[in-house]
Amino acid sequence: MLEALKEEVLEANLALPKYGLVTFTWGNVSGIDRESGCVVIKPSGVPYEELKIQDLVVVDLEGRTVEGELNPSSDTPTHLVLYRAFPDIGGIVHTHSSWATSWAQASRPIPALGTTQADYFYGSIPCTRPMSAQEIKGDYELETGNVIVETFREMNPQQVPGVLVNSHGPFAWGENADNAVHNAVVLEEVAKMAYRTVTLNPSIMPMDQHLLDKHFLRKHGENAYYGQ
Amino acid sequence: MLEALKEEVLEANLALPKYGLVTFTWGNVSGIDRESGCVVIKPSGVPYEELKIQDLVVVDLEGRTVEGELNPSSDTPTHLVLYRAFPDIGGIVHTHSSWATSWAQASRPIPALGTTQADYFYGSIPCTRPMSAQEIKGDYELETGNVIVETFREMNPQQVPGVLVNSHGPFAWGENADNAVHNAVVLEEVAKMAYRTVTLNPSIMPMDQHLLDKHFLRKHGENAYYGQ
Amino acid sequence: MLEALKEEVLEANLALPKYGLVTFTWGNVSGIDRESGCVVIKPSGVPYEELKIQDLVVVDLEGRTVEGELNPSSDTPTHLVLYRAFPDIGGIVHTHSSWATSWAQASRPIPALGTTQADYFYGSIPCTRPMSAQEIKGDYELETGNVIVETFREMNPQQVPGVLVNSHGPFAWGENADNAVHNAVVLEEVAKMAYRTVTLNPSIMPMDQHLLDKHFLRKHGENAYYGQ
Amino acid sequence: MLEALKEEVLEANLALPKYGLVTFTWGNVSGIDRESGCVVIKPSGVPYEELKIQDLVVVDLEGRTVEGELNPSSDTPTHLVLYRAFPDIGGIVHTHSSWATSWAQASRPIPALGTTQADYFYGSIPCTRPMSAQEIKGDYELETGNVIVETFREMNPQQVPGVLVNSHGPFAWGENADNAVHNAVVLEEVAKMAYRTVTLNPSIMPMDQHLLDKHFLRKHGENAYYGQ
Repeated sequence: MLEALKEEVLEANLALPKYGLVTFTWGNVSGIDRESGCVVIKPSGVPYEELKIQDLVVVDLEGRTVEGELNPSSDTPTHLVLYRAFPDIGGIVHTHSSWATSWAQASRPIPALGTTQADYFYGSIPCTRPMSAQEIKGDYELETGNVIVETFREMNPQQVPGVLVNSHGPFAWGENADNAVHNAVVLEEVAKMAYRTVTLNPSIMPMDQHLLDKHFLRKHGENAYYGQ
Repeated sequence: MLEALKEEVLEANLALPKYGLVTFTWGNVSGIDRESGCVVIKPSGVPYEELKIQDLVVVDLEGRTVEGELNPSSDTPTHLVLYRAFPDIGGIVHTHSSWATSWAQASRPIPALGTTQADYFYGSIPCTRPMSAQEIKGDYELETGNVIVETFREMNPQQVPGVLVNSHGPFAWGENADNAVHNAVVLEEVAKMAYRTVTLNPSIMPMDQHLLDKHFLRKHGENAYYGQ
Repeated sequence: MLEALKEEVLEANLALPKYGLVTFTWGNVSGIDRESGCVVIKPSGVPYEELKIQDLVVVDLEGRTVEGELNPSSDTPTHLVLYRAFPDIGGIVHTHSSWATSWAQASRPIPALGTTQADYFYGSIPCTRPMSAQEIKGDYELETGNVIVETFREMNPQQVPGVLVNSHGPFAWGENADNAVHNAVVLEEVAKMAYRTVTLNPSIMPMDQHLLDKHFLRKHGENAYYGQ
Repeated sequence: MLEALKEEVLEANLALPKYGLVTFTWGNVSGIDRESGCVVIKPSGVPYEELKIQDLVVVDLEGRTVEGELNPSSDTPTHLVLYRAFPDIGGIVHTHSSWATSWAQASRPIPALGTTQADYFYGSIPCTRPMSAQEIKGDYELETGNVIVETFREMNPQQVPGVLVNSHGPFAWGENADNAVHNAVVLEEVAKMAYRTVTLNPSIMPMDQHLLDKHFLRKHGENAYYGQ
């Protein structure tokens, strides 16, 4: 069952080292079948070069293993919180990609500074608040998801398909696993350019709102005309 | 028709990922046949690894499609403004290459700081002024061309074969598509070195005018002797 | 004798250029057989692309050559000090990898700024004090080992598997040669991200202690549950 | 004639793109046969991927072409000044490698900050003074050589095998063409690490003199013992 989804999740996981987003096993991709509520996710600790389709784990939205011999990624509870809270997303990526992680460690959101970001993110890429001692000591991976959801209380996750988890690293998502990886690559690229931009001009202001509107809305939503 | 030009424009487009100037489809190259006024340009949204010669689109200088099944790049109106305003150029490149884009986002021209830049650009590489709300909401891609042309009102585009579009990214041009890509590579390389130079020495002044003259003029114009 | 260890040490040495940790011959890996007290180490001056298993040198813990035609790495006395002082480590790596070396040259420890570091290092990665004229003029490579050991007087080398030698570069270690290289890769990666983090936010504080505890202890020690 | 030298100079030129030191044709290597006073050098403007042994040009120390169909590199007069002034060097490299060029553009010498530099350079890597208008307008490439020689008036070019030409880029040299390229790679690597070091710690002082002595002198001169 779910063979097409597994194939897509496998390809999406293998894309992470191809795009230079991961060192060792520091990343994972999942995809969801909304009809059955089944999530396919990378197993814990398996190197990308050895990852095979039968290694993937299928869990339900409460985290019970439905299929698979291996343990699902330790970050599975975080993925599940996001799937439950953001009903329109179909794939999630977590990495420690170095530029995005640097912003997360600096506890700074990535401001919208140019059209590259505006083509994919409708504004700045937020950074979560630090987690409390209680959250960390408790159900940590689940609470990581909760703090992301809290960050998006007034934001649309389809308009801002990624986040920086404070002192940790990025999560990105999309309509499916492949699109989530696409957004993770964009996030890393805009994190790199924003770093250099704020170094070159520490007093730079966020980009013009009209320009942000133009670029985001010509690609997304009902009036999109770009790339079609 | 225009088979040689199409071949050249195809090669020039494929050179962008080879030189590391593009992520995904974030770039495009065009070339013009001045006799017929026909412009060959990359289609919109086609990944470089799948791009074939029959995908290229031929448009006239008013933007009417002359040949081709696909839509021309969304940036086509910008290219056409430049071809109309700069009668001596034969090829144009647009990318979001990361170093040049960082300067564009920082809203700073790249000062002439050394002989690498002086060999190709006769002075600093300008950054356009921010576009107005009206320009952005209007015929945006055409207005992007207009603001570039405005920036070159007192400059010779053959002596400064590239520009940074504010909050966006670089355009470069040349006598043909291949030469335009060459200049785009130079622009990215000097953007990288200038970033590091101003970080190492924030009070650095532009290079000596005699040295700039020497390097530019030994390679360009009627007294050139370099590389011959 | 020691064929399995030699094979492992050879592979670990060849991993250094693969992971981009070395230029030319600027690095070496050793592994120890605790039972016999024999250390297998890279010979001095042999390029990685020519390194063969029979080139490896076997020395005892006092540095006497037990087997091998070539001279052991000039850094051998440093390795031996560490093996004698840290009885639980099985492999050691020394490189001049560029991010870690930059911190060493800046005479700054790498603060624990995020979970990537916390997954492997239980706190900051220390930088040794400058060596005295006497230490430098004396048995220099041995004294380099001594100053590392001094730095770990109040630290557990299994909880902090690496160090920056002041004005020099990093050493990393692990339960065996392969694991030591793994930790050297991590050290380089966290050095890179910490550089960017402190540039983005010069007043950033070390990460929350609870988060550090969580990440380190879920992977190490008796309550570990991660990746299993 | 000079077949062995030509072979070595060809290999050394081809090593420049391999080590990432050049973009396009921005670099050249030469080697000298001291007995005959003949210098073998890269021709002007030939791309590295097309460079063949018969393209190399042989000139005498006064710059007269002895053999070869193509024009010698435009930088040939600079090379010749150095061969005449530094009788113990056998090979010279010029590139616009990006880290070293950034220091040259910043008009800053590279301070000796760690043992990587100390293993090859006995102190800081100097930056020439700006050239005068007269020098630039006159026999420019020859004057470039003269200003390098002036910089080394009180320095031994064998102890400091490289220099930054102000607002331009690096030259490196060595006992032969291969060794000159080796030193050019080292110069680029230490330029990179020094950049990051001074960013991390702007008030960092040059490394301890005893440590500089130890590292340089254990590899060079009559008391060398390292790597043997």
